[in-house]
Amino acid sequence: MFEIELLGTGSAAQVPVWGCDCIACERARVEPQRRRHSASLALHTPDGVTLVDAGLMDLAERFRFETIRRVLLTHFHMDHVQGLFPLRWSERAERIPVYRPDDPQGCDDLYKYPGVFAFQPPLQPFSPLAFDDFTLTALPLHHSRPTFGYLIDLAGGYRVAYLTDTVGLPEETRAYLAARTPQLVLLDCSEPPREPAPRNHNDLTRALQIHRQLGAGRTILTHIGHRLDSWLLTQSYELPAGVELGRDGQRLRCPPC
Amino acid sequence: MFEIELLGTGSAAQVPVWGCDCIACERARVEPQRRRHSASLALHTPDGVTLVDAGLMDLAERFRFETIRRVLLTHFHMDHVQGLFPLRWSERAERIPVYRPDDPQGCDDLYKYPGVFAFQPPLQPFSPLAFDDFTLTALPLHHSRPTFGYLIDLAGGYRVAYLTDTVGLPEETRAYLAARTPQLVLLDCSEPPREPAPRNHNDLTRALQIHRQLGAGRTILTHIGHRLDSWLLTQSYELPAGVELGRDGQRLRCPPC
Repeated sequence: MFEIELLGTGSAAQVPVWGCDCIACERARVEPQRRRHSASLALHTPDGVTLVDAGLMDLAERFRFETIRRVLLTHFHMDHVQGLFPLRWSERAERIPVYRPDDPQGCDDLYKYPGVFAFQPPLQPFSPLAFDDFTLTALPLHHSRPTFGYLIDLAGGYRVAYLTDTVGLPEETRAYLAARTPQLVLLDCSEPPREPAPRNHNDLTRALQIHRQLGAGRTILTHIGHRLDSWLLTQSYELPAGVELGRDGQRLRCPPC
Repeated sequence: MFEIELLGTGSAAQVPVWGCDCIACERARVEPQRRRHSASLALHTPDGVTLVDAGLMDLAERFRFETIRRVLLTHFHMDHVQGLFPLRWSERAERIPVYRPDDPQGCDDLYKYPGVFAFQPPLQPFSPLAFDDFTLTALPLHHSRPTFGYLIDLAGGYRVAYLTDTVGLPEETRAYLAARTPQLVLLDCSEPPREPAPRNHNDLTRALQIHRQLGAGRTILTHIGHRLDSWLLTQSYELPAGVELGRDGQRLRCPPC
């Protein structure tokens, strides 16, 4: 069984934002299912769990050590790697491989003291890498740090693209994906429509452009900030068919039943 | 009313440690009150809350923005500052002052993107700084990064020393404290007795030496690792009078009733 679990669907500020009384933040305080933690997911396959980013701080509670096969990092911003800091001090002899873009700086002292994590040589973009249960292809994104999206080819030809953090898509990445139409796209959409676009993330306008460009059957928006949640709550606007907001804890069977 | 709330009493690995099945880690999994998060505390005074370190990741849930008067950082290791990363993106106009040792590096990009936090010029050791409700004195410690302990003089002459992370005490710090006998000492004790001492933290032997040197009425051990908890659970050993293990969530009235 293949399943994607959206561990977090929020931006670095998360929802609710500390000290904010906007309608989305107030709602998230009273309806915990509306909260958004740092964007990240767990890919459950017969072989175990692959974490894509590690923004949650309670990963030790959620996942037994033995189940984690590997970690894929999109980039080294704190909200995507912070959960590794306490985990690294596990005293287990095994090492968990971490795949990543080429970022010599990493985050704080993670490279210096990796603990149980074994940082692998940087992934090569557009070079498929086969694991037991899926094939992974790293896809460059437009962000303020070296950042990869990931195309995950599951058995049976089901393809999932995880594309955050990014504003728009580099042309090569767009063309690569368009030639391999993923059935499911998980896509950065941090802000409501705005001009100019945010510097490092999609607003809704850019996210919907990417959805149309890729022709995916289903696009789930993630890395959502409180302003997008508020905007959707106060505008009479409906997302187009095939596009939806992700929510923390959401589980997606791949392929769907 | 003055009250100290021990937000966390654990080492960087926390208790339980990921993937560990020692007696202390197994106990903490079934008895949540035995868990130990990153060592940190909240000082509650009539003026509001002073955070001493920020290792917890749910500070936004625990403290309303308006209640936080300031943050005191002992040093910039991740387990002491990680909680600031999500908080900094609050969009409030007010700035929260952060007091700290002289560490030009800080942690990751905190100095570059401080958000709502206003990093103050480094504190000068042994120079009392008066706030509305207490006087603060920074005391150098022995650690792998520039690190301060803090002497907190509350109204009425009640003095609390927070001394973590450290192995032993620099002589000047010891002499300064011994001349001002704190009634309450919160003290790094990461490990059971061992030779040689750990490089950057007290073991129980060094912690008890400091307790005797300072002549404090009450010493509460913190920054506790799972090996110390396990050792105490399996040895027939009793801590000497006046010394106790801290526990997460413990509240200490200052002075006691």
